[in-house]
Amino acid sequence: MTSPPIRHPVRIIGIDPGLRRTGWGVIETEGNRLVFIGCGSVEPPDDQPLASRLLAIHEGLATVLGDFRPAEAAVEQTFVNKDGVATLKLGQARGVAMLAPAMFGIAVAEYAPNQVKKTVVGAGHADKNQIAVMLKILLKAEPKSADAADALAIAITHAHHRQGAALRMRVASL
Amino acid sequence: MTSPPIRHPVRIIGIDPGLRRTGWGVIETEGNRLVFIGCGSVEPPDDQPLASRLLAIHEGLATVLGDFRPAEAAVEQTFVNKDGVATLKLGQARGVAMLAPAMFGIAVAEYAPNQVKKTVVGAGHADKNQIAVMLKILLKAEPKSADAADALAIAITHAHHRQGAALRMRVASL
Repeated sequence: MTSPPIRHPVRIIGIDPGLRRTGWGVIETEGNRLVFIGCGSVEPPDDQPLASRLLAIHEGLATVLGDFRPAEAAVEQTFVNKDGVATLKLGQARGVAMLAPAMFGIAVAEYAPNQVKKTVVGAGHADKNQIAVMLKILLKAEPKSADAADALAIAITHAHHRQGAALRMRVASL
Repeated sequence: MTSPPIRHPVRIIGIDPGLRRTGWGVIETEGNRLVFIGCGSVEPPDDQPLASRLLAIHEGLATVLGDFRPAEAAVEQTFVNKDGVATLKLGQARGVAMLAPAMFGIAVAEYAPNQVKKTVVGAGHADKNQIAVMLKILLKAEPKSADAADALAIAITHAHHRQGAALRMRVASL
């Protein structure tokens, strides 16, 4: 017995937060298919004070959320390393990046980096090229920036985990 | 030759970010005096998902900023330690806490923790009790929570550094 495929389209935004570049990617599930809607990155001017850079991230994401009106959001869990300064910077960007969808009333799911790679490529330690190839296969998308590519990969991961069986069918039929 | 004291009142908000409790304190400079306006803390429900907790911090601070309309804001610089998970959590709360005043068009100054202690108590390693005593002397304020007290101390530090000479006169005349 299998579940019937979900028929109504669900629009998902994936966000890859960063103080220098915050990537975003929007996809839509249509039954078993994933459809590319848009992607890009928000790049705050790096000569500004921290609060201004965080504001630029917020405003960039708010514009994207307003334009694309996704129903669900996903953000990558942050890999915590021993570089406390880098972790703090990323945390600040991540807080702002998670706030934006919450302000639009959208739930924000979180996925571990190796979960994202495993979902999109099939292995937990995929490199950028492998992700790019899969984005082309799954979405016919060729994002210009690595951040936008990562954001699309996060969105795909969420699509997979909210309706796992359907996506596996799609990949198997390629 | 000394600068004349600044006569027009300036309202300052200090913010002490934290995912469990974000303290805030509002003061006003009046010439050489500091006047206590209000303080408190935003405490997101800790059984909620991260995005909801960040939204609660944002909404709490936005309400305070809307009610008190400060002209300037200050946040403590975060002490980065080896606990990456704690640093990430604090970073997320801090990003949201710095965003709120930026969304109101208010510049956000940053001060190191020992700079705050040195300004308020006169030593870089003051304890909570010494800060409480000085808040009572300088502001006639007795905040209920440690986070609100820290936020007021940050606001005082900003008042001091934006018009250092004037505050030293006030302390010297106690």
